[in-house]
Amino acid sequence: MKDTILKFLKGADYISGEDLSKRLGISRTAVWKHVQSLKEQGYDIKSMPRKGYKLEGIPDLLDPVLIFEKLNTRFMGNKIYHHEAITSTNNKAKEIAEAGAPEGTVVLAEKQLQGRGRLGRTWESPAGGIWMSVILRPNIPPAKAHNITLVAACAVAKTLRQYNIPARIKWPNDILLNGKKVCGILTELKAEMDGVHYLVLGIGMNVNTEKEMYPPELKDKVSSLKIYTGQNLDRVELLCSFLKNLEEQYEIFLNEGVGKILETWKQHNITLNNHVQVRSGNEVYSGLAVNIDKNGGLIVKDENGNSKTFYSGEVTLQG
Amino acid sequence: MKDTILKFLKGADYISGEDLSKRLGISRTAVWKHVQSLKEQGYDIKSMPRKGYKLEGIPDLLDPVLIFEKLNTRFMGNKIYHHEAITSTNNKAKEIAEAGAPEGTVVLAEKQLQGRGRLGRTWESPAGGIWMSVILRPNIPPAKAHNITLVAACAVAKTLRQYNIPARIKWPNDILLNGKKVCGILTELKAEMDGVHYLVLGIGMNVNTEKEMYPPELKDKVSSLKIYTGQNLDRVELLCSFLKNLEEQYEIFLNEGVGKILETWKQHNITLNNHVQVRSGNEVYSGLAVNIDKNGGLIVKDENGNSKTFYSGEVTLQG
Repeated sequence: MKDTILKFLKGADYISGEDLSKRLGISRTAVWKHVQSLKEQGYDIKSMPRKGYKLEGIPDLLDPVLIFEKLNTRFMGNKIYHHEAITSTNNKAKEIAEAGAPEGTVVLAEKQLQGRGRLGRTWESPAGGIWMSVILRPNIPPAKAHNITLVAACAVAKTLRQYNIPARIKWPNDILLNGKKVCGILTELKAEMDGVHYLVLGIGMNVNTEKEMYPPELKDKVSSLKIYTGQNLDRVELLCSFLKNLEEQYEIFLNEGVGKILETWKQHNITLNNHVQVRSGNEVYSGLAVNIDKNGGLIVKDENGNSKTFYSGEVTLQG
Repeated sequence: MKDTILKFLKGADYISGEDLSKRLGISRTAVWKHVQSLKEQGYDIKSMPRKGYKLEGIPDLLDPVLIFEKLNTRFMGNKIYHHEAITSTNNKAKEIAEAGAPEGTVVLAEKQLQGRGRLGRTWESPAGGIWMSVILRPNIPPAKAHNITLVAACAVAKTLRQYNIPARIKWPNDILLNGKKVCGILTELKAEMDGVHYLVLGIGMNVNTEKEMYPPELKDKVSSLKIYTGQNLDRVELLCSFLKNLEEQYEIFLNEGVGKILETWKQHNITLNNHVQVRSGNEVYSGLAVNIDKNGGLIVKDENGNSKTFYSGEVTLQG
């Protein structure tokens, strides 16, 4: 009902309470109550004696109503769950995926209280970022699940390029700006050997977050689009661009295989042809990052000419 | 309590109800009730006026008490959940894995009511087989989860060889005898890209099942160890041998990598160097099975010399 009232408000200059009450089939008191609740959420709604209600300002929220107005995807984001605050969008997404949520379902949160990153780390998720999880159900074996992480990294990089932000992908899936992390991807999956049941793509983008929102030990490692560009970005627009790019890259992967994705990934990456140190489990391996294989594994060649392929681990670029 | 009474009965020729009541700190009526319940489960327990109870026969059950007597593993099977009947041991295992069950935990059932096979098929699970699931928590990325299926197939093949049963592995994980399936493996997992959270190894072994237990359409495709050898096998002993072999192969994999596992798999396989047809999704591909790669993918070379690697699919051997 709140969403419908918003649509009417956005579609008219002024609309009277009586008019809304008739069109929605609810009492004028009910209309008034919904308008109050919208105001509490940050919508700037004026009421003028004979004219009625007027929407004068929209809060900076990833509100599904605002998203659906701009989103032009086929299925990505068809269903959106939006939360003011949540422990972790990935946890919520796994819960609804278990219950059968369709491919393309998106969980959004303004804040994550226990945002998670790779390797069991926490992910700082204050207000101003885009903290989201997308449910996918690709017909692929778990051995190829890495490919989806590459798909997502490509979609992020392509989106930021459309904003003239020269982001680069650090293997496997960190997005860096000037060497600092602005986006991370945490992919979780449930599968049997013959196929993935579902995959949850957790994406955290530091959009309008500010320097002082991060703990001191992260200040040299983390950045945001606002810190980089010096201005606030329209998060709804950015999200819609990302979902469009994600759908495109995902469909390229499904229809044409991983080849083109690898090309795109390589175009935007900052890992290959660099000396790297890879920590994987207890192992530390150093060498030249020479390529990624078709499953997304990083191939590193050491000084003796031996090469090793990594499917997980933490890469440090050594220039 | 039942298990403790069983241990006392097995440890003595005769043991009196009074003795049991003292040792267990329960009333003689309680002892009598437990003995009745054991009898109902098929334990042949005689009671002689002044001598007491005597255990004369043990039912053919995968009873943890009997298993723990013979099991000599380090951790595989340390915790056993035994069910008379259950929908699916894999479902139960996933449930307890979610709740934190440790590596090596085993779920057993005398019968599965909704036993599942690969590719969404049902798995006939009448009384007489070994229907089990093992929880593993290897520190590997999902791209390598296939390796664990190879580990399990090797453990089954090795166990059957110890019984002089010349079982062969059909890629990826069916165990055949004279071309008919006697064992199947259904591996399910929950993971993120950097590591598997848990992996459930579902293993169905047609041990003492009889021809007439299978529907007509399966008669040419399915066999059992009893059908092959003409005699009943001791399921408890077979299970213990399997768990020992599984632990060994698993530790070889963890400590030395997949190399030795691939060697063992190749020794026992019936797929390589055969012409095969692979159905994977909508695709049907024919050619010579030339090798498996280090992630367990099957490499098939077609008549034009092109080769393709499969990580899932259904193989038909064409001789």
